[in-house]
Amino acid sequence: MYVYLCGMICDMKGEYSVFFESKTYNTKYRTQFITITPDVEKYVADSGILEGTIVIQTLHTTAGIWVNENEKNLIGPTEEIGYASDLRRVLDRFADPMHDYGHNDIADSNNIGGKRNTHLCEPDENGVIQECVNGHAHAQGMILQSSISLIVHGGKLLRGGWQQIMLVELDHDRPRTVSFLIQGIQQ
Amino acid sequence: MYVYLCGMICDMKGEYSVFFESKTYNTKYRTQFITITPDVEKYVADSGILEGTIVIQTLHTTAGIWVNENEKNLIGPTEEIGYASDLRRVLDRFADPMHDYGHNDIADSNNIGGKRNTHLCEPDENGVIQECVNGHAHAQGMILQSSISLIVHGGKLLRGGWQQIMLVELDHDRPRTVSFLIQGIQQ
Amino acid sequence: MYVYLCGMICDMKGEYSVFFESKTYNTKYRTQFITITPDVEKYVADSGILEGTIVIQTLHTTAGIWVNENEKNLIGPTEEIGYASDLRRVLDRFADPMHDYGHNDIADSNNIGGKRNTHLCEPDENGVIQECVNGHAHAQGMILQSSISLIVHGGKLLRGGWQQIMLVELDHDRPRTVSFLIQGIQQ
Repeated sequence: MYVYLCGMICDMKGEYSVFFESKTYNTKYRTQFITITPDVEKYVADSGILEGTIVIQTLHTTAGIWVNENEKNLIGPTEEIGYASDLRRVLDRFADPMHDYGHNDIADSNNIGGKRNTHLCEPDENGVIQECVNGHAHAQGMILQSSISLIVHGGKLLRGGWQQIMLVELDHDRPRTVSFLIQGIQQ
Repeated sequence: MYVYLCGMICDMKGEYSVFFESKTYNTKYRTQFITITPDVEKYVADSGILEGTIVIQTLHTTAGIWVNENEKNLIGPTEEIGYASDLRRVLDRFADPMHDYGHNDIADSNNIGGKRNTHLCEPDENGVIQECVNGHAHAQGMILQSSISLIVHGGKLLRGGWQQIMLVELDHDRPRTVSFLIQGIQQ
Repeated sequence: MYVYLCGMICDMKGEYSVFFESKTYNTKYRTQFITITPDVEKYVADSGILEGTIVIQTLHTTAGIWVNENEKNLIGPTEEIGYASDLRRVLDRFADPMHDYGHNDIADSNNIGGKRNTHLCEPDENGVIQECVNGHAHAQGMILQSSISLIVHGGKLLRGGWQQIMLVELDHDRPRTVSFLIQGIQQ
């Protein structure tokens, strides 16, 4: 199925070049999988890199990058399809949002003896700290990586027919920034 | 145990070069771990890259790349050792092939109201679609990555004594293509 | 929150350079998360690379690299906080150290019919092999990667405010080597 003619471009010398870009996506719900393949392919085309690599990196601790099939029964949205998506179920069985996490026991004026007394935002005028209760999302972040490297070949992102690049929201709706660095030989 | 002399090659300038190769492996069974280290090391040697990196990428959504120990009790084959390999048990507890997945409920002439009505192959003359029942394999694909980056140092793949590069089949027997891009300073 | 001015450095040509370094960390207990961000940032600064990437790679099969928040309730140490850290609980539910693993059934003079008769250290004078009972740690090593790639941008490691680079010990206390390769355009 996948045939590559390996000739003059298999071992290529030339001018090294780097291209950098960032984009912010507004996520809408927990375990949203946003397909970002068109952006990735546009940046690869814009870069003019012929042979090289792209690193795709989130700047967040409760979001990840995943390369797989974006079929709706796998990825949801759960609310739209009317039943839990396959991957939400699997991720939640790995690290259940309803379990207790020490990370969620936030020390503030409402909870003086809370276990988590560092890595906190500033309290409001009532001494209450607005933090996400997201221990499960950090744990799920062990599975879905902060960054991936993919190959750029023949001036294009190398990917199989079913491979899509997805940004995965493990926490709640918010802006999420993804950065892209493409390096290689420029045409 | 691991000692590196860090001298003139620690900060190296020179001609940037890229080497690309692909190879297809015929997998034989579910959760097969195929050691591809000899191929990786051959490509690194062929490339002549002295200092740089290699990206190893599958072009599939139900296969992954893993760097670890290829001991038979860990990786199997289950049928050969006569008991379930450790990692098949762990992967299947994470995403059980016997569970129900919406992804497996394929809409065709045998199953008119099936949930999965996109991302399908063409039906045959009887309206039946030959698709793998592989929701579990996509879920296990969250754990085993589509691509990895490793270091090339001193003209060789950098790896610890027990580290082997493995292609992991999460679905059934089939051809699987892996691509390799090596970039860096050529000797 | 994250704003990047994308001007002259977005598409940059220049002299390609590679920087390599290794460091050994002495881990102290199972599921220790050691923050190595200061070392990573020092090596990026030392390299003088302005735009490029860094690959961070362990040379071990029961240790991993993770990018996330180093909050003590998440990562422990369990003994210090007085309760199991969130991530130790999640990792151990994924692959329980108390379960049976074929990998742990070591064939030596104490256990003649042991399943694991390859990938072993030399026996001592009594025919006893000193091997870690660490099947769970290899399995957990499917989750925590051997290597990661991150972006170097504007002469600095690109990371979000909560992102820390951590070496994760999945087995027992021992020396662990991490290697760093930075490549890109040097200033």
